[in-house]
Amino acid sequence: MLNSIVEAEKNFRDLLKEQNAYKESIMLTAWDMRTKIPRKSVEQRSEVVGFLSEKLHQLETSEKMRYFIDVLKEHSTDETIRKTVEECKEKYERNRKIPADEYKEYVMLQSKSESIWQEAREKNDFSMFQPYLEKLVDFNQKFANYWGYDDHIYDALLDNFEPGITVNKLDQVFPDLRKSLTELLDRISLSAVKPDPSVLEGHFPKQDQEAFSLAILKKMGYDFASGRLDETVHPFAIALNQNDVRVTTRYDESDFRSAVFGTIHEGGHALYEQNISEKLANTPLSDGTSMGIHESQSLFWENFVGRTESFWNSHYDLFKSYAPKGFAKVPLERFYRAVNEVKPSFIRIEADELTYPLHIMIRYELEKGLISGDIKVGDLPGLWNEKMQEYLGITPPTNSEGVLQDIHWAGGDFGYFPSYALGYMYAAQFNHTLKKEINVDQQIASGDFAPIREWLSKNIHQYGKMKKPLEIVKDVTNEDLNPQYLVNYLTEKYTRIYEL
Amino acid sequence: MLNSIVEAEKNFRDLLKEQNAYKESIMLTAWDMRTKIPRKSVEQRSEVVGFLSEKLHQLETSEKMRYFIDVLKEHSTDETIRKTVEECKEKYERNRKIPADEYKEYVMLQSKSESIWQEAREKNDFSMFQPYLEKLVDFNQKFANYWGYDDHIYDALLDNFEPGITVNKLDQVFPDLRKSLTELLDRISLSAVKPDPSVLEGHFPKQDQEAFSLAILKKMGYDFASGRLDETVHPFAIALNQNDVRVTTRYDESDFRSAVFGTIHEGGHALYEQNISEKLANTPLSDGTSMGIHESQSLFWENFVGRTESFWNSHYDLFKSYAPKGFAKVPLERFYRAVNEVKPSFIRIEADELTYPLHIMIRYELEKGLISGDIKVGDLPGLWNEKMQEYLGITPPTNSEGVLQDIHWAGGDFGYFPSYALGYMYAAQFNHTLKKEINVDQQIASGDFAPIREWLSKNIHQYGKMKKPLEIVKDVTNEDLNPQYLVNYLTEKYTRIYEL
Repeated sequence: MLNSIVEAEKNFRDLLKEQNAYKESIMLTAWDMRTKIPRKSVEQRSEVVGFLSEKLHQLETSEKMRYFIDVLKEHSTDETIRKTVEECKEKYERNRKIPADEYKEYVMLQSKSESIWQEAREKNDFSMFQPYLEKLVDFNQKFANYWGYDDHIYDALLDNFEPGITVNKLDQVFPDLRKSLTELLDRISLSAVKPDPSVLEGHFPKQDQEAFSLAILKKMGYDFASGRLDETVHPFAIALNQNDVRVTTRYDESDFRSAVFGTIHEGGHALYEQNISEKLANTPLSDGTSMGIHESQSLFWENFVGRTESFWNSHYDLFKSYAPKGFAKVPLERFYRAVNEVKPSFIRIEADELTYPLHIMIRYELEKGLISGDIKVGDLPGLWNEKMQEYLGITPPTNSEGVLQDIHWAGGDFGYFPSYALGYMYAAQFNHTLKKEINVDQQIASGDFAPIREWLSKNIHQYGKMKKPLEIVKDVTNEDLNPQYLVNYLTEKYTRIYEL
Repeated sequence: MLNSIVEAEKNFRDLLKEQNAYKESIMLTAWDMRTKIPRKSVEQRSEVVGFLSEKLHQLETSEKMRYFIDVLKEHSTDETIRKTVEECKEKYERNRKIPADEYKEYVMLQSKSESIWQEAREKNDFSMFQPYLEKLVDFNQKFANYWGYDDHIYDALLDNFEPGITVNKLDQVFPDLRKSLTELLDRISLSAVKPDPSVLEGHFPKQDQEAFSLAILKKMGYDFASGRLDETVHPFAIALNQNDVRVTTRYDESDFRSAVFGTIHEGGHALYEQNISEKLANTPLSDGTSMGIHESQSLFWENFVGRTESFWNSHYDLFKSYAPKGFAKVPLERFYRAVNEVKPSFIRIEADELTYPLHIMIRYELEKGLISGDIKVGDLPGLWNEKMQEYLGITPPTNSEGVLQDIHWAGGDFGYFPSYALGYMYAAQFNHTLKKEINVDQQIASGDFAPIREWLSKNIHQYGKMKKPLEIVKDVTNEDLNPQYLVNYLTEKYTRIYEL
């Protein structure tokens, strides 16, 4: 028996390695398609990705996989193997529940919808996109029913991105969070203090922004022997494997914030992937445990490090050495306030720290309604604008700046958006714990981020998918998800900035 | 019967598409490994390439493939299919002769050796590379014996790159060519005319060299919607598919020639791949027919276009608009002579047109000896230097500038080098024919390369692998390989430059 288990473990690892080879090729292709690919090759390359994905899917749902799951779930004494088996079992069961022909049709619909969405956004024409979105919603409702759920159909989708999180939980957390944030927003709007973002203006050449981005990544401890920085339209971080975690950013020569904060954000994602324990290499556990925990890492670095006064105290001179000459005349205090201006705006990815979660809640409520059937796709543009007015006090002038702005729904990713707000709450909660152990402000002010990065790696990164998201939150902070830390953080920060 | 043939053809095409998906992934990975990959990921990525190559190899040698070959060879009436079947049959038979596990080991060795070679070259440490090279030679000897040969073991390897060419043929051509070239070289060394390469000096920033390289590629008719230019250590062109043909070059800020002529050279390769008939897409015929014919295209553009007086007549102003200011004072005549200076040098890819074939002959003799067993890997650095002294009258000061300079052996490509000299001879022969049909000098002087490119596409590019190399030479020039055209071309050119 023992011998046959050892052999099954070995063969199981070989199967995982095969899966990984496909995954790595798919990831490399994805990176290339978003950064380097020549235009005319996109269609052909999509077919290649389709082919590789099908091969991967076949392995993940193979009889061989079923066999290893059955044998090793019962008999393996290796903890990594057991956790890996759990992970594979979930994937196996989720995938087997969807009929192969429906899955294929859905994959084709996704790819088609993404390009239609892109055109619809450019042309500001929601009606072009509507029939596709309707089909995507239908598929997601069907899939949710295949997968099953206890309370709310949307839970089945949430589970794809943030296992353990339910509608019930979100509906406990979001209303209070919203109340606190809008109250703070109201107080800010009444403040006599008005940060002046015009001090941030000036032509900032791409190569200088790139040089500064590289310098900051280096200081964060991002390992360039295991990664690289490239340019893209929509910034992302992608892990081909633990030793190849690539970061991309976007350079707007008239607004450096997009590149600087984008790079720090993606760098935070990358540090997570680069610091997962080597023991998990070549298993599906060598990955962030959830979208929310991933986002907690990117937002931690972007906001809790990169947008702090301490950070700019220690990095403003470095920044000025790359920045246009005009910045020499901008005092640190004015600069710091300007990069932290709070102002309701239409585009989620450009939102400030305070209004950002409100953007997320709007999306959450709309997609919950779409999936439950309470909201019709045709009513989305109107509802979007109503909610923008209600939550943020502004109405997008066009659908391109409203309901059409994000790619997620076009890719069929319903249940993803809440992760952004969850990640933000996790980050604030982690930060609260971290501050009890390390003098974070002093550390950031010293410009030596190593102790912070090491704390994150020790408590979060190294585990990969060995721990579920809420298990990590509990283990690190000794309590369950608690949105109060985010509220406290934002209140404290903006009370100082806006002298409330 | 007819119905079943049509169905077999369809299924055969599906199999080719699968093969192509693997090939395209392998090519993308190869490009990435030579241009973008983070250092620490090289080893893991090599395993991925090994896995994908194994899968491809399995398809190429599958029973299914055997079946299609048998059925369609006899019964298909579609010429593309029949040629494709021939191609697949050759590959099937060659590959079936190599045991699968040996092949896999070899592919991983290749990939690993390339990165070790890179490091060895940087560190000028042949001993680092030696054990890898020994294994590569062993494998190639074994493979050559598996494949079989009539006269010389090296013929089995030559056949991989230049079908139809043998040791016997090379040993007929090379000695005469060497004699003519060294005689011309002797006459040049006695000439009172001395081009002054110091006029080419000056710090030429990378980004300006890149901008000029891009401008020249554009003028050559390279399609940027189907390709891109990147930086690398050892320039290459690579076709992921017909609509994704990437070019790389190397920037030496103290010597622009490396980037400019390197880019034109690789651009010549790329034009070949971009202009293969679309009818051959997704078949193994959508590829250059041999390394020699490929090289005839790159060398044609590099030498017969890019190094001509007509070219610089029409492009010197453009060049000066990107070049350091000092060039404003350099008259065209001095510039033209300087870029055509003949001077024995260490690095093949930087060699002038006249000494270039001598570099090739040295490599040919060494690798022929390695494969036959007459030469040991450990003796290579010494033999290399001796031959450099004998053929070119100079001895490289380091192995990095000697035996370690080229990537080919690190990739296991024995039998490849002769293609460079063959390609050069083909190019001269094509050029002779082309000149009878088009006023080439006038066309180059006008800066409109379209008629030249179209002639090459019509006579060579479009066929892909539909024609064998010597078949193309015969069809285009109406005679067999004739080295005299190269000798005539060089004699005429240098007689003028050196006023012999």
